[in-house]
Amino acid sequence: MPPYNFSTLTVEISPAGVAHVQLNRPKALNAFSNQMWEDIHACFSQMKTDSDVRCAVVSGSGRIFTAGLDLKDAVQNPTFSGKHDESADVARKGYYHRFHIHHWQDCLSAMERCDKPVIAAVHNACFGAGVDFITGCDIRLATEDAYFCVKEVDIGMAADVGTLQRLPKVVGNDSWVREVCYTARQVPAKEALAVGLISGVYKTKEEMVKAALVMAETIASKSPVAVVSTKHLLNHARDHTVQEGLEYTALWNALAHNSKDMGVAMMASLQKQKATFPKL
Amino acid sequence: MPPYNFSTLTVEISPAGVAHVQLNRPKALNAFSNQMWEDIHACFSQMKTDSDVRCAVVSGSGRIFTAGLDLKDAVQNPTFSGKHDESADVARKGYYHRFHIHHWQDCLSAMERCDKPVIAAVHNACFGAGVDFITGCDIRLATEDAYFCVKEVDIGMAADVGTLQRLPKVVGNDSWVREVCYTARQVPAKEALAVGLISGVYKTKEEMVKAALVMAETIASKSPVAVVSTKHLLNHARDHTVQEGLEYTALWNALAHNSKDMGVAMMASLQKQKATFPKL
Amino acid sequence: MPPYNFSTLTVEISPAGVAHVQLNRPKALNAFSNQMWEDIHACFSQMKTDSDVRCAVVSGSGRIFTAGLDLKDAVQNPTFSGKHDESADVARKGYYHRFHIHHWQDCLSAMERCDKPVIAAVHNACFGAGVDFITGCDIRLATEDAYFCVKEVDIGMAADVGTLQRLPKVVGNDSWVREVCYTARQVPAKEALAVGLISGVYKTKEEMVKAALVMAETIASKSPVAVVSTKHLLNHARDHTVQEGLEYTALWNALAHNSKDMGVAMMASLQKQKATFPKL
Amino acid sequence: MPPYNFSTLTVEISPAGVAHVQLNRPKALNAFSNQMWEDIHACFSQMKTDSDVRCAVVSGSGRIFTAGLDLKDAVQNPTFSGKHDESADVARKGYYHRFHIHHWQDCLSAMERCDKPVIAAVHNACFGAGVDFITGCDIRLATEDAYFCVKEVDIGMAADVGTLQRLPKVVGNDSWVREVCYTARQVPAKEALAVGLISGVYKTKEEMVKAALVMAETIASKSPVAVVSTKHLLNHARDHTVQEGLEYTALWNALAHNSKDMGVAMMASLQKQKATFPKL
Amino acid sequence: MPPYNFSTLTVEISPAGVAHVQLNRPKALNAFSNQMWEDIHACFSQMKTDSDVRCAVVSGSGRIFTAGLDLKDAVQNPTFSGKHDESADVARKGYYHRFHIHHWQDCLSAMERCDKPVIAAVHNACFGAGVDFITGCDIRLATEDAYFCVKEVDIGMAADVGTLQRLPKVVGNDSWVREVCYTARQVPAKEALAVGLISGVYKTKEEMVKAALVMAETIASKSPVAVVSTKHLLNHARDHTVQEGLEYTALWNALAHNSKDMGVAMMASLQKQKATFPKL
Amino acid sequence: MPPYNFSTLTVEISPAGVAHVQLNRPKALNAFSNQMWEDIHACFSQMKTDSDVRCAVVSGSGRIFTAGLDLKDAVQNPTFSGKHDESADVARKGYYHRFHIHHWQDCLSAMERCDKPVIAAVHNACFGAGVDFITGCDIRLATEDAYFCVKEVDIGMAADVGTLQRLPKVVGNDSWVREVCYTARQVPAKEALAVGLISGVYKTKEEMVKAALVMAETIASKSPVAVVSTKHLLNHARDHTVQEGLEYTALWNALAHNSKDMGVAMMASLQKQKATFPKL
Repeated sequence: MPPYNFSTLTVEISPAGVAHVQLNRPKALNAFSNQMWEDIHACFSQMKTDSDVRCAVVSGSGRIFTAGLDLKDAVQNPTFSGKHDESADVARKGYYHRFHIHHWQDCLSAMERCDKPVIAAVHNACFGAGVDFITGCDIRLATEDAYFCVKEVDIGMAADVGTLQRLPKVVGNDSWVREVCYTARQVPAKEALAVGLISGVYKTKEEMVKAALVMAETIASKSPVAVVSTKHLLNHARDHTVQEGLEYTALWNALAHNSKDMGVAMMASLQKQKATFPKL
Repeated sequence: MPPYNFSTLTVEISPAGVAHVQLNRPKALNAFSNQMWEDIHACFSQMKTDSDVRCAVVSGSGRIFTAGLDLKDAVQNPTFSGKHDESADVARKGYYHRFHIHHWQDCLSAMERCDKPVIAAVHNACFGAGVDFITGCDIRLATEDAYFCVKEVDIGMAADVGTLQRLPKVVGNDSWVREVCYTARQVPAKEALAVGLISGVYKTKEEMVKAALVMAETIASKSPVAVVSTKHLLNHARDHTVQEGLEYTALWNALAHNSKDMGVAMMASLQKQKATFPKL
Repeated sequence: MPPYNFSTLTVEISPAGVAHVQLNRPKALNAFSNQMWEDIHACFSQMKTDSDVRCAVVSGSGRIFTAGLDLKDAVQNPTFSGKHDESADVARKGYYHRFHIHHWQDCLSAMERCDKPVIAAVHNACFGAGVDFITGCDIRLATEDAYFCVKEVDIGMAADVGTLQRLPKVVGNDSWVREVCYTARQVPAKEALAVGLISGVYKTKEEMVKAALVMAETIASKSPVAVVSTKHLLNHARDHTVQEGLEYTALWNALAHNSKDMGVAMMASLQKQKATFPKL
Repeated sequence: MPPYNFSTLTVEISPAGVAHVQLNRPKALNAFSNQMWEDIHACFSQMKTDSDVRCAVVSGSGRIFTAGLDLKDAVQNPTFSGKHDESADVARKGYYHRFHIHHWQDCLSAMERCDKPVIAAVHNACFGAGVDFITGCDIRLATEDAYFCVKEVDIGMAADVGTLQRLPKVVGNDSWVREVCYTARQVPAKEALAVGLISGVYKTKEEMVKAALVMAETIASKSPVAVVSTKHLLNHARDHTVQEGLEYTALWNALAHNSKDMGVAMMASLQKQKATFPKL
Repeated sequence: MPPYNFSTLTVEISPAGVAHVQLNRPKALNAFSNQMWEDIHACFSQMKTDSDVRCAVVSGSGRIFTAGLDLKDAVQNPTFSGKHDESADVARKGYYHRFHIHHWQDCLSAMERCDKPVIAAVHNACFGAGVDFITGCDIRLATEDAYFCVKEVDIGMAADVGTLQRLPKVVGNDSWVREVCYTARQVPAKEALAVGLISGVYKTKEEMVKAALVMAETIASKSPVAVVSTKHLLNHARDHTVQEGLEYTALWNALAHNSKDMGVAMMASLQKQKATFPKL
Repeated sequence: MPPYNFSTLTVEISPAGVAHVQLNRPKALNAFSNQMWEDIHACFSQMKTDSDVRCAVVSGSGRIFTAGLDLKDAVQNPTFSGKHDESADVARKGYYHRFHIHHWQDCLSAMERCDKPVIAAVHNACFGAGVDFITGCDIRLATEDAYFCVKEVDIGMAADVGTLQRLPKVVGNDSWVREVCYTARQVPAKEALAVGLISGVYKTKEEMVKAALVMAETIASKSPVAVVSTKHLLNHARDHTVQEGLEYTALWNALAHNSKDMGVAMMASLQKQKATFPKL
């Protein structure tokens, strides 16, 4: 495995297997630059097969979590509207522009595909692409001063890198989801907790990050076979009928039950000791 | 566009593009008569391609929001049990009766298909077909004295114009959904807010309608391309996997990004002015 | 209909049509033994076509609701890892082990398939397979001292008899769902109520069971055609698009509207009397 | 029922219940004009609930079956590129243009939705929109001199009113389907028969139309409940898994088996007479 | 395993693992009696986990393959129209009648679920339920004098135990499928071969059965892990997108590749010997 | 664009936009080595956005088209059974082995995703992985001496890189598909043509390759917007209902109709000249 060296992210991996990923463009308010999309993709794609990582926490460095898309940088991306020169017609440009949107969607879906749980720890502002980002995470925590905004309608477009697909599936209040998507209203942490966008609120950023890391360590201490299976099967379940999910699960566990981990867990339980599971 | 003249609905369209639709059978407690189904269908089908409408609010005139189906009127509908005379067999009658149910379903789905957000503002009672109706809206607000009732089991039938399909997808508490669908229990506004059936409660009908209209004006002030895209994509997302939703969104925006609205929004932002978007 | 005689369950059926099913292995903390899976399957499969049962309540006898899987008993089940002797290879064993998981899934899905509403009444602990069990019920109530735990990761495996499929669909807070599935954290009743896992909390087990039975009697007093239709259509809706659910519903009711129950309900309403519906 | 008076179609309905629909723009080679799309929609929508129609045959008057889209007429359609004036941006025009394509698709799907079988009888040329049209029919017959052409790529576009969706599902040779869709090659009747695009070839137009009418009369002599059920269920099956199709079929027949037709058929069989079924 | 003793079927299992199942009601022309549905279900459900069976051939004893449903016997089945007495209303009867249709569908689907390939060998007539039956098999062979008939419309109903779901998916000529389903026309073997309903035609029943048994022996000589996997994955593929099928296959083989059979095959190949695979 | 330099493939691109890709391991009978999978992936991924390529032909150099998987090479691939050392348990190895199968599947799906039509030209033997490969192409042609074999059961496994998903969807004779998948029987070109696996047979390899290149040139001469749209929509249609395919198509063409190509085509038609379309 190469080191996790990214210009827009810092990554620290603890011996317990917890990766702390920080959005690291504090001067630019952690806005999503062209490079940051690539770094997110590279980071979580590598974690997928990195046995040393069992769980990840994502937080933002500096004053806010993220201001959303770095629009100035985005429009300079030559692939933004396709590879074509200005003379190409709309159909040709659109054909390539679609690839560009796919690519950014894929950068965030890398978190979902990596099978290791990802905990988002949000302080202060989380705008636009930031909401696309955190809805692609598994668990969302925030500080009391945090606020969230599905900002896209304010720049004349529909959110297109995940919010419209995932927000209604992570929050059980469709009336609220639609209101915030149509109005771009800023949502404070307290309201986000009440509707279920986040599942924990903390006084300070320090407390929140610490809580996130403790939660991540707990997860990292479990059988990695059990944890990645659980994430993979929850994602499968979301997109299938209950019956299809059950059938896929039965096949999955017919394989996964061949791990040593069930024996390890039982032995530890008998010996009243903490189980230690081999890496995956 | 013809004027919005309906015997069971009143429609006022503000210059800002907000349509205020009122259920207008106060003497009949806004019960869903045969004509009202047709009027709802006609009203929202027309709004779909009416550039002057960007967002709609639906409220009820008179004492209550709606008493639900006007059963007396319904049974006089010659298409209710199909076009057949009494001598037709059950299979033949049922073949046509199915069309009748489809038609009423379709009347409510017209709100969903119109792509402009619809805000339901409920005061006092909302019974039976009223719940089918409001779950087909985007956003639901209510007064403190409002109460909701999935009444159908009490008249010996399962709800069949939308409640059973949409209620579980707009509310994130399946245990509650099933309880109210099996028991026909009346649910007060406070409880409806707690489970997420509604996303706002107001003291009086006046306050609520005003708040709904203000929210609608906010939505109407946004790029209409962005708003209809957002509604269309949220509805698509609900019925597809995350991956399919993302792919459809990429194609949608490869077209929608050709609007002038992103430029308008950016220019307004640079000039610290309010953006004004052309009609759609 | 044979009597409901099961070694691990007690079943009492009231004249009103309410079946009270009790998990009845109090000495084993109502852990799911090999026999209990079979008994659950047999019990609810029989109720499906038992006209005397219109609604069911499930509670646990003894100190706790259930400790989850009876692991000791499970590993003695000759079909647990397939029918093969020890010399069979992993592919062969896995092929049969998959059938075993399917079978246990199917035992719980029998509650879903039986079309009569099932109310879970949980006191004290509900662990592991217990969560798979109650998410397969329609309505979940609990005592103040109840606590829930998706225990499977702690024994080195992903939950595979329903929790990962159903929990995210009965609770509208995905962040919370994932946290409890990855950490095996114990969730108290108050929290379970807040996120929507349960829809009612009661001081004591007696109060809760009484409330559950009263609710079940209310349901049992409704038209059985309406109630089973409602359950069947809600389950169908969960697994289909809104449009497909509507079409299936129209067909269903084109048949179901031929019941006598709508007439019975209307006549009772006119006569200001309580309707009494024939058995289904 | 109003008479079937259309400017682009002639419709004759026999006492046996066979509707003979002829594309009737011979001077324009039966090209699909704006009016013809509307007439097709109106004709088959009416047949859906017309008890006097049990089966339909479609043929073309004049020299050829159809030359495909009447491009000159199409571009004059004000809704062709949306309702907008020339100054509207591409996103706005495209939003409405999509409705236009939907509408034409819907005109052809009216044949599918009408539930009465439709037999296409093709002589000579069947080009472009003609292939979209005939793949929306149930049965396809042709004369020896017939030839087919998926013409759209030759006018710089992908076929968008049905061919790309239906052709691969009515023909079991995907290699051939793709070849003819990419190359716009003309396919003679003999080849169309070999790959299964058509299921019968006849020497002359007269022979073919006669054979089609005889086949239609045979179908019209069967139980109309059985025939419309069969068409409806075949269309459902195409778009669902086998298991879902079976479940829908069981529900459908639980209703349809209440027809008198099974008794009529059995009685006729016992009496060795031809059964006569009441209209649907 | 109990012996395969059925009153309507004879079963012979060869040492090579080929089960020859014969429909054995020659006096009743192998019509599907109430008992025969049960026997088919029991026979193939048992074969699913019977290591001694690797492939099955089904033929008919006596003059014809099958005359289809034994209607006289069927109507005497107390569950045919539900368990209810004559006084029950149509909704109540229909609710139970649906279970009856499900059950018969399930009897035939047992062949699909058993994962061992089933070869149908058809001589002379194959009518109605016989077509439902053979489309649930994997491979279809016939004699020159065989003929097939989707007979259901002639008795006033739509086929409801599989033909409408499976026939269009096993035959690549939808025009032909619909013609034979709407007309109940008898199809000779030669035509059945041309459209792909069958994949082999033989002069006599003896030749055909011998060829079927030889083919079955060939299949039985292959790795049983490879063969059941292939059948299971082909059935899965039919009901899913290509991408979903690929993902399921990858998971399946991540388990199945742990069989000894790949090593056995390679070793035999190196030694130029015939591989012998252990039972599954 | 980098040059198409691959050790296992040769690629020649004509000025007309036809890429001729040759499998180029003649000494190894064009068996699929680890490198060849990567080269196929790289080659077609690059063609996706290479404006100079409009259509591709794939043929095999040397004596045969391909012998299938290069098993010796495959087992030396360190990722073949996951990255783990021998001591890892089956669950851990299987988790990674699944990724390996996914990767090879993905290499072939690159042909499907590239949106430019791919014509397979098969001479002599096409075994195992070769069938997975050609079913991922759009059009299949062969020489008279060609023969095809779904070889996987003979090496003790189910085909897992596409054959079981795609073969039943490109061939309309399911009985035949299953026979050849269960028996690994060699199928001559004539039979492959009859069942629709291929759509053209040629005397010699030279004739076939020439015919394939001529067909590719024809395709390359059409509007590239029309051609890639057609391929993309055919693939979408295969995996969706007809209605969903139509809706996606309407959106697609609302964008694609903004190309210059429809104007170019019409102008050329008026001027009776050959249209020349700009690159995509």
